[in-house]
Amino acid sequence: MSQVVISVSGKSASNTRLNIQARQFNFVADEPDGFGGTDQGPNPLEYLLGGYAACLNVVAHVVAREQHINIERLQINISGVLDPSKFLGLPTNQRVGLSSIDVEFDVDSDASPAQLEKWIAQVKQRCPAGDNLANGTLLSLAVKVPVAN
Amino acid sequence: MSQVVISVSGKSASNTRLNIQARQFNFVADEPDGFGGTDQGPNPLEYLLGGYAACLNVVAHVVAREQHINIERLQINISGVLDPSKFLGLPTNQRVGLSSIDVEFDVDSDASPAQLEKWIAQVKQRCPAGDNLANGTLLSLAVKVPVAN
Repeated sequence: MSQVVISVSGKSASNTRLNIQARQFNFVADEPDGFGGTDQGPNPLEYLLGGYAACLNVVAHVVAREQHINIERLQINISGVLDPSKFLGLPTNQRVGLSSIDVEFDVDSDASPAQLEKWIAQVKQRCPAGDNLANGTLLSLAVKVPVAN
Repeated sequence: MSQVVISVSGKSASNTRLNIQARQFNFVADEPDGFGGTDQGPNPLEYLLGGYAACLNVVAHVVAREQHINIERLQINISGVLDPSKFLGLPTNQRVGLSSIDVEFDVDSDASPAQLEKWIAQVKQRCPAGDNLANGTLLSLAVKVPVAN
């Protein structure tokens, strides 16, 4: 299967606001007032979890078709708990990211609970965003400065 | 530092489209035509990377202030490569998620290259979304079915 490149580009509009472009789409991230932002859009972790939810929706339907499960209605609720200490530079033994991520599939289906458990187990395995969150990903960060600098 | 709960809720509008709500905000994820979708919004991994970019923007400014670095302009470009084989249920030895994630900070600053490298190293350490991507996160998935089912 040929590989696919996924890319986004974000222009910093303030200390907290980023104007993000992905292909023909634009979306805005910001922080709420309580985090020093101007609350002009979802915050970064809301987009992260939203992307994971969206990935699960796609995979859920692919796997349901494979397993001959009929999904009449699906809502995906995701939450995580953050300790902002390390992000803010305060002493802590907590990790800087979400300590865990909980996903609830609120579903109407005529499938049995056992069939739905089998479905969810496969969905978890086959979700690209979930793999990147669960299993660690190599992140390479580089700075590009103007040649004349 | 008190903990913060981050949560989103997505309603499945089609096999590929998810209508996502985070606090007062709504955003739409979909897949392009080539992936069986209707291309009504960024795809799931674009939101995932967009959320990471937005997180980096916030942390970049926090750390720049701490390190007395002046950032005049900042653009954050992120890309990753996906092999869709496993997602589609095809035989493969590739992981299902992005194989790696590359971040470029395109920056105008009067700081030296060495100062900027030090800045980026700290930004990488202090970014919550980056921690969740780099270091693995416990994902708990559960199904909720109607009581009357």
